[in-house]
Amino acid sequence: MKLLEERIRKDGLVKEGNVLKVDSFLNHQMDISLFQEMGKEWKRLFADAPINKILTIEASGIGIAAVAAQYFDVPVVFAKKSQSINLDGSVYSTKIQSFTHGREYDVIVSKKYLGPEDKVLIIDDFLANGCAINGLSELIREAGATLCGVGIAVEKGFQDGGRKLRDQGIRVESLAIIESMDAASGEIVFRA
Amino acid sequence: MKLLEERIRKDGLVKEGNVLKVDSFLNHQMDISLFQEMGKEWKRLFADAPINKILTIEASGIGIAAVAAQYFDVPVVFAKKSQSINLDGSVYSTKIQSFTHGREYDVIVSKKYLGPEDKVLIIDDFLANGCAINGLSELIREAGATLCGVGIAVEKGFQDGGRKLRDQGIRVESLAIIESMDAASGEIVFRA
Repeated sequence: MKLLEERIRKDGLVKEGNVLKVDSFLNHQMDISLFQEMGKEWKRLFADAPINKILTIEASGIGIAAVAAQYFDVPVVFAKKSQSINLDGSVYSTKIQSFTHGREYDVIVSKKYLGPEDKVLIIDDFLANGCAINGLSELIREAGATLCGVGIAVEKGFQDGGRKLRDQGIRVESLAIIESMDAASGEIVFRA
Repeated sequence: MKLLEERIRKDGLVKEGNVLKVDSFLNHQMDISLFQEMGKEWKRLFADAPINKILTIEASGIGIAAVAAQYFDVPVVFAKKSQSINLDGSVYSTKIQSFTHGREYDVIVSKKYLGPEDKVLIIDDFLANGCAINGLSELIREAGATLCGVGIAVEKGFQDGGRKLRDQGIRVESLAIIESMDAASGEIVFRA
């Protein structure tokens, strides 16, 4: 998606350790008009999918998913990061390894809001090693719901999360895929 | 706002300890078309305010704020709950006491996304004792920004957060104010 690629080039900051900071418009300050365009693009890409629910994960996926959901006319459920308190059988849960924060955490969704009747589109801001998406996908499997696809804003194409998901036959639509980036020069190359 | 009151009556669950569960439509599963109506109503109520930014706090404020922001045509910044790591001078920070979770946590906003030029509307899902709103208000004060008002989905009118904010001269527009509620009968009385 040209609009998002241009915005990343203009306002994204490449940092050492393959870090891309996009917090001026995507995941701390949020440009809602950009999110609208992203939502329209996912709707175009998934027009043929019988999606009746969007699933995301707190916190930075929520704003993108909420705005995008308007074009699908479906509710959004966000998975919560839990401290393992209160896992009382009323929730689906899985563990996600966070490389950014160097620890593992539990992620939960209430059994009331995900079930066999749900045809789910996962939306998130980033895809790198795929841990978060694999966790959400596991919650969908536990619930007996159907995963229709994954909508990602920014995929780090040089990490293997996207490839592994696609190898499983999961449809992944990333609006910008970064082939490589360089902290010294600030250069970003997008996948054509 | 009648639509929200009716929805709370229909789908809200009153639990012991003055807990109101609205996670089927507000803060776990999110009814985006309801959020659109809430956004329109806040825009109507704050039509005369020169708002150029919306501030909320992760996680459950984000979806509401993102959808509402469309009617103000402004960006949203969400304050992050931090584990006190990485407070390196690049952020405004304050501490918020959480009664729900029984602990205190740091809340941060990057200095890049809040400043003296900002005229801010705070949006959040709940107002009870007012700790979260006071924390956000403190971040706005630190940044030298102007607080134009506070938009709340559900105010627990029997707790004193709303009164204290209004006593400070802060404009608080709560779309539903609960005067009282009863866990045994499930009855909810709204402020007229």
